[in-house]
Amino acid sequence: MSFVLDPQLNKDTHFVCELTLCQVLLADDSQFPWLILVPTVPQVTELYQLTVAQQHQFLTESARACEALQTLFSPDKLNVAALGNVVSQLHIHHVARYASDIAWPAPIWGRQPAVPYAPDAAQDRIARIKTVLLKE
Amino acid sequence: MSFVLDPQLNKDTHFVCELTLCQVLLADDSQFPWLILVPTVPQVTELYQLTVAQQHQFLTESARACEALQTLFSPDKLNVAALGNVVSQLHIHHVARYASDIAWPAPIWGRQPAVPYAPDAAQDRIARIKTVLLKE
Repeated sequence: MSFVLDPQLNKDTHFVCELTLCQVLLADDSQFPWLILVPTVPQVTELYQLTVAQQHQFLTESARACEALQTLFSPDKLNVAALGNVVSQLHIHHVARYASDIAWPAPIWGRQPAVPYAPDAAQDRIARIKTVLLKE
Repeated sequence: MSFVLDPQLNKDTHFVCELTLCQVLLADDSQFPWLILVPTVPQVTELYQLTVAQQHQFLTESARACEALQTLFSPDKLNVAALGNVVSQLHIHHVARYASDIAWPAPIWGRQPAVPYAPDAAQDRIARIKTVLLKE
């Protein structure tokens, strides 16, 4: 069985790039710099269900995503979360948070409606993220 | 500098046990089977700031916590999250969620007041968790 991205995740995000294990997506909500990493492994809903090698690779890619968010957005805090109550396909949120953001200090999920990016703004943000994320 | 548990975390939880890297705490909210893992490393606020060896050890202990929650509580979904917007000391939530719980499908944090355990109920739950978590 091959990996297929969940249709809801596909609808709510922009594609950024592929890393070794994960697809990197940008959540289509301009209120938060918010990346979603999706391990391209079929039928997995929890991190601990990945093999140990995959879990280690996930950590490497998660750290890269965190460092890219730090470098580009200088947040007050990062929020990293595997929830999946709505979409069960394993996906891990990486969100740059600010004491001044609309949801602070609460988590961002399910509180305020998303504010989609203007098309140019999404493409500009994706380009900046790729520059940092894919740097050797 | 030695590790000291954040006073707010100490106040809001019951001590369960020590693993190699993490203290395991039970959140004092009887509405959810909810463990908190705190790596006993001073002055760390983000997972990616741990050494790679510590991150790998964290994954091992996180998987153990997840499997204990699965075994004991048969949840519909696990939620694993490093947030830290209120308490910045690195701590990772592991929550057993049910489609029937009070917050579903939203995240649990900051939505409904905690319902503390009766003393006997907390000790009973901790004993059951330790039995599974510390099993070789």
